[in-house]
Amino acid sequence: MNKLRNLLLGWSGRHGVLLFCCLVWSAARAEEIQSPNKQLTLSVVLQEGGVPTYSLTYKGKPVLKPGKLGLELKNTTSLTSGFSVANTQRRTFDESWQPVWGEVKTIRNHYNELALTLTQAQTNRTMLVRFRLFDDGLGFRYEFPRQKDLDYFTVKEEKTQFALTGDHKAFWLPGDYDTQEYSTVTSNLSEVRGRMKAAVTPNASQKTFSDTGVQTPLMLKRNQDGLYLNIHEAALMDYSTMHLELDDKNFVLESHLTPDAVGDKGNLQTPCQSPWRTVIVSDKAADILTSKLVLNLNEPTKFKDVSWIKPVKYVGVWWEMITGKSTWSYTNMDNIKLDSVDYKTVKPNGTHAANTAHVKEYIDFAAKHGFDAVLVEGWNTGWEDWFGKHKDYVFDFVTPYPDFNVPELQQYAAGKNVKIIMHHETSGSVRNYERHLDSAFQFMNKYGYNAVKTGYVGDIVPLGHRHYDQWMVNHYNFVLEKAAQHKIMVNGHEAVRPTGLSRTYPNLIGNEAARGTEYESFGGNNADHTTILPFTRLIGGPMDYTPGIFQTRISAYNPQNNSFVHSTLVRQLALYVTMYSPLQMAADLPETYNKYLDAFQFIKDVAVDWDDTKVLEAEPGDYITYARKAKGKSSWFVGSTCDEQGRTSKINLSFLEPGKKYVATIYADAKDAHYEKNPMAYQIRKLNVTSKSKLTQYCAPGGGYAISLVEAGR
Amino acid sequence: MNKLRNLLLGWSGRHGVLLFCCLVWSAARAEEIQSPNKQLTLSVVLQEGGVPTYSLTYKGKPVLKPGKLGLELKNTTSLTSGFSVANTQRRTFDESWQPVWGEVKTIRNHYNELALTLTQAQTNRTMLVRFRLFDDGLGFRYEFPRQKDLDYFTVKEEKTQFALTGDHKAFWLPGDYDTQEYSTVTSNLSEVRGRMKAAVTPNASQKTFSDTGVQTPLMLKRNQDGLYLNIHEAALMDYSTMHLELDDKNFVLESHLTPDAVGDKGNLQTPCQSPWRTVIVSDKAADILTSKLVLNLNEPTKFKDVSWIKPVKYVGVWWEMITGKSTWSYTNMDNIKLDSVDYKTVKPNGTHAANTAHVKEYIDFAAKHGFDAVLVEGWNTGWEDWFGKHKDYVFDFVTPYPDFNVPELQQYAAGKNVKIIMHHETSGSVRNYERHLDSAFQFMNKYGYNAVKTGYVGDIVPLGHRHYDQWMVNHYNFVLEKAAQHKIMVNGHEAVRPTGLSRTYPNLIGNEAARGTEYESFGGNNADHTTILPFTRLIGGPMDYTPGIFQTRISAYNPQNNSFVHSTLVRQLALYVTMYSPLQMAADLPETYNKYLDAFQFIKDVAVDWDDTKVLEAEPGDYITYARKAKGKSSWFVGSTCDEQGRTSKINLSFLEPGKKYVATIYADAKDAHYEKNPMAYQIRKLNVTSKSKLTQYCAPGGGYAISLVEAGR
Repeated sequence: MNKLRNLLLGWSGRHGVLLFCCLVWSAARAEEIQSPNKQLTLSVVLQEGGVPTYSLTYKGKPVLKPGKLGLELKNTTSLTSGFSVANTQRRTFDESWQPVWGEVKTIRNHYNELALTLTQAQTNRTMLVRFRLFDDGLGFRYEFPRQKDLDYFTVKEEKTQFALTGDHKAFWLPGDYDTQEYSTVTSNLSEVRGRMKAAVTPNASQKTFSDTGVQTPLMLKRNQDGLYLNIHEAALMDYSTMHLELDDKNFVLESHLTPDAVGDKGNLQTPCQSPWRTVIVSDKAADILTSKLVLNLNEPTKFKDVSWIKPVKYVGVWWEMITGKSTWSYTNMDNIKLDSVDYKTVKPNGTHAANTAHVKEYIDFAAKHGFDAVLVEGWNTGWEDWFGKHKDYVFDFVTPYPDFNVPELQQYAAGKNVKIIMHHETSGSVRNYERHLDSAFQFMNKYGYNAVKTGYVGDIVPLGHRHYDQWMVNHYNFVLEKAAQHKIMVNGHEAVRPTGLSRTYPNLIGNEAARGTEYESFGGNNADHTTILPFTRLIGGPMDYTPGIFQTRISAYNPQNNSFVHSTLVRQLALYVTMYSPLQMAADLPETYNKYLDAFQFIKDVAVDWDDTKVLEAEPGDYITYARKAKGKSSWFVGSTCDEQGRTSKINLSFLEPGKKYVATIYADAKDAHYEKNPMAYQIRKLNVTSKSKLTQYCAPGGGYAISLVEAGR
Repeated sequence: MNKLRNLLLGWSGRHGVLLFCCLVWSAARAEEIQSPNKQLTLSVVLQEGGVPTYSLTYKGKPVLKPGKLGLELKNTTSLTSGFSVANTQRRTFDESWQPVWGEVKTIRNHYNELALTLTQAQTNRTMLVRFRLFDDGLGFRYEFPRQKDLDYFTVKEEKTQFALTGDHKAFWLPGDYDTQEYSTVTSNLSEVRGRMKAAVTPNASQKTFSDTGVQTPLMLKRNQDGLYLNIHEAALMDYSTMHLELDDKNFVLESHLTPDAVGDKGNLQTPCQSPWRTVIVSDKAADILTSKLVLNLNEPTKFKDVSWIKPVKYVGVWWEMITGKSTWSYTNMDNIKLDSVDYKTVKPNGTHAANTAHVKEYIDFAAKHGFDAVLVEGWNTGWEDWFGKHKDYVFDFVTPYPDFNVPELQQYAAGKNVKIIMHHETSGSVRNYERHLDSAFQFMNKYGYNAVKTGYVGDIVPLGHRHYDQWMVNHYNFVLEKAAQHKIMVNGHEAVRPTGLSRTYPNLIGNEAARGTEYESFGGNNADHTTILPFTRLIGGPMDYTPGIFQTRISAYNPQNNSFVHSTLVRQLALYVTMYSPLQMAADLPETYNKYLDAFQFIKDVAVDWDDTKVLEAEPGDYITYARKAKGKSSWFVGSTCDEQGRTSKINLSFLEPGKKYVATIYADAKDAHYEKNPMAYQIRKLNVTSKSKLTQYCAPGGGYAISLVEAGR
């Protein structure tokens, strides 16, 4: 009885509250649910002092040890202890839904739910923790009902723990309030601290917070038994982005939110809730890739008409600037004031890519090869001093350079059934973008643009804000909603990492939010980069990775640039299958594609929307092989990517419809291909195959292969 | 020669720069100019180390001792020393201009100018200091031409000194980044430190910065000879608001700018300039009041059409909420989410003032008595939890409460030739206001509103910003420009103090930016308050002081409120003359005015725009008597206000046109009137007068008088 008494005094004694024993006993009782297939078991226990904890097992083995739940609040009692369970609700949910675009035609949303209503007697407050246990993992969130004694509150820190069972292998990025554009480090968690410094490579805007802080999605593999774990969040809206702070003695990860300008980590008003915290679990790596848990935890879209949202395959006036072959800016002036420059009177630099004649060439190429659209960057005034100046009025988003004729190009593109993709670089000057948003979208509607690539390069202006704080999260969603009002699709670069929001906002057709192909021109990505991204960044949603670079030596475009693409040409093809996105760019220059039209055929053929997806092989950091069935068609496409070791892939084609004959066109690395030494050596061969066929295929170091499978006679 | 060598080494030696001696010698030479009437002399000297300084004399006596000039920059060499004079330019300017509205019909802008181009050899930078010496004082500013070695820079602090000649009497407010709503303290500068704590009274948003920090406009009176000095700034645009930090040993005031969320004090891009720093000087207090120096230092308006800008006399649904008699909100809910409340289904509180029927009563009253407009606060949804919550989406500015019929009231008011004044309280949530600005102004255009009262009560959201930082200064001007595009006049409350910007933006017809009449219901203003404001706050521009409170006991409206107006009823009339504004409210309730229609006649009669203005008597903190001639008419109006001592005013009416006869209607305190004990006792008498008449008039403690002078037979 002494222990009970101490327990009581521990969290209520100071306030002289005498509690009913039944509440205390309920606190000690474990609440459990199982996943529909019974492989996962969740257990929730109020520990001493009324501290809520949860733990998770998979096939009877512990996955997460008891981890604490709660939030530390500012200037008031925290929501971390002193809780009793006031109510427990269980339910089962099973429903299928069809995404507007996606990897599969139909998604099953099947879970068992446990909702605990926790009351904090000391403060007369109520907090609900809602758990959803799927076959592929766990989602849970905090809910704060409307209540008298909790109306407005400020989060000092969220205190959600993910208590691992030991020192796992991790695929991690440095935790950072402003960027995810780091190379993934593969190491044990115990090595994070030692490798952090080297992992933090320079970026246009960055703010790390700890030697053991890492980002989500965090991919983990348990050393002893090969169990795979993935930790992320779903439905990040009007809340601060979560990072993970590692306790590298106990291997407990704890939530670390992004602070605002005064260090607060969220201003909330009841009724409200946190995003979902997600843990995907399987002993098969492939299951992590096919999990739809994050999407399922997002709300269905409220858009009544989604007919204007369409997957897009595009080329663009982009890579030539990224390589340094040409420029975004029309002149070489520095330090300009947007409204006081008369561009018609200043000397052009002669390197401006986004000029009418040149854009027409891209439009011609797009039309000839069946692309939907041409992205044009550098079309608008202001690029002379857009970067790194913390400049407020940096762009107006409606004024073209004098050599870019908007109506003429609109007419030209429309005549060829090609769309031009708008580009809104904000340079992080967010108020300026919001001030111009209406007029910018009206301009797009007027001139026939239906998609925009947004950019947030550099520090957020005004300073003090971070790319991932609540204020900015709110901004990105504001842009999505405004865009939807104008029937505009959005591809957000340097914005917050996706959390499955495209279910709710299907006009969010792309995001960057990781180290994309552009870094191949800035020193290069690791050869295993694309064998990891599907397990990390892509768990939240599609990435505008911009693959398709055939000329892997950047010096071919810019003699001053010694970078090279850390991939064989053939693997660039495979990425259209392995890096799922409804928005896919053929990023290289038309002049280059014209030299390799046989390989280019795969990019022309490959679908960007799918009825079905199979993971044929997968191991994070080593290799991934996908097969996907084109939307509404019988064709399949296979892509395989491997790391710098190279390998031989063995797959069988049982995913094909039994009894049907297919022509397989196999785009393969040449025997002597190598991502660095001989990247552009490839072979193309055709085979007749059926669902009974098996394939053994060599992948060069940093290579892979791509296959189109077209029903014979089609 | 040793001294010269040391001087050279002091600021350039480390960089091994060898300077031409001629530059050094030029640094020691004083540059001088005189005011057009030769009473003021400015002297500019580069002191040792190339530190620019300036000093000022008036009628041969020092006014400002040598004070340093310059700016401290962030992460680079400061612009405070190491200067040489590269060029000196002088010119004389003399021009008259007519304000869109004002105290006089024509304003003379007459000054001698000295512009020093200073070069900083160490950095290869150029800064220009431009001085304009008027008969009534000095203005100067920093200019930063476009140059290679100074493009973007961040101000750490502006280091402008105002080196007083001793311990002056000061009329000061605590320096604060967020509010000017303090009672003025009258004390010697040496007493500021000791009286600061008591001076900092609570406010909805406040951030003081020092025990000796004070605000501008700062009114000073030299103890030994009664010289008057006023320090302020003019043309504050895209720069941080200036406060003054007092060195109370040496009586040097130094500029202290308002920091942003990360502590920076301004992000500038060349070409650019600081606002003007202004020093008005005279041995007559009246000259301070009639100075047009601050207006003259602002740029002429760029508006081509100003026909839509008109002075406004108005009543409003306002004082009844300020007193607590009724409410802004329609219900008594707390904690609402704007888009999820269905106001049609919730219970009204029955105290909501802005309902259609009641607003019609105000419209009737306005129409009957010749007012131009009716302000209506509390018309829109969101007032239930608008305040103090740091709430982001607090108002949408377009959705009326269900009992406020916008089209019906539009029609009703239009039928009576009365305008309704829009109210946009932002609750400091600035991004939210900007997001809704276009739709809010479109709404106003649609429903016939041509003026808006804006409000910024509480901390700026997102936190970290300050009401007076550069970001907010930029915001207020953005609103002015957007409003002008919609032909909307703006009356900004809780915004930054005005700096004569109404010359450039004549649609800025009012500002609060000081402790207004509302404080009479929140505990009261000092009885001498209105004898000081014209010397301080009004130096920057008109104030929406909202006078005209006849029922001085607030308890008459709300038994719980023990506050009282620290003024006699008659002085409330005088304020329409002494507190210049093109926007004047009759703030009390129609039911009260109906009881005192004889006194109310003055408010009906008094003009709000003027052809001429005379200060008949003035001493800051004691009394002010103004005479003003109505725009385009022969009538004059006189107002006199005095402090808690009471006094007898002796004026002559020589300002009247000689040879003409006028009927003077004199609204005077009764003999036993007293602002606290007997405030509502008044007498009205009529006299026939001419320009040769003299008047002796008793003013009760906290009282005054008001006179209308109408040409006989008119």
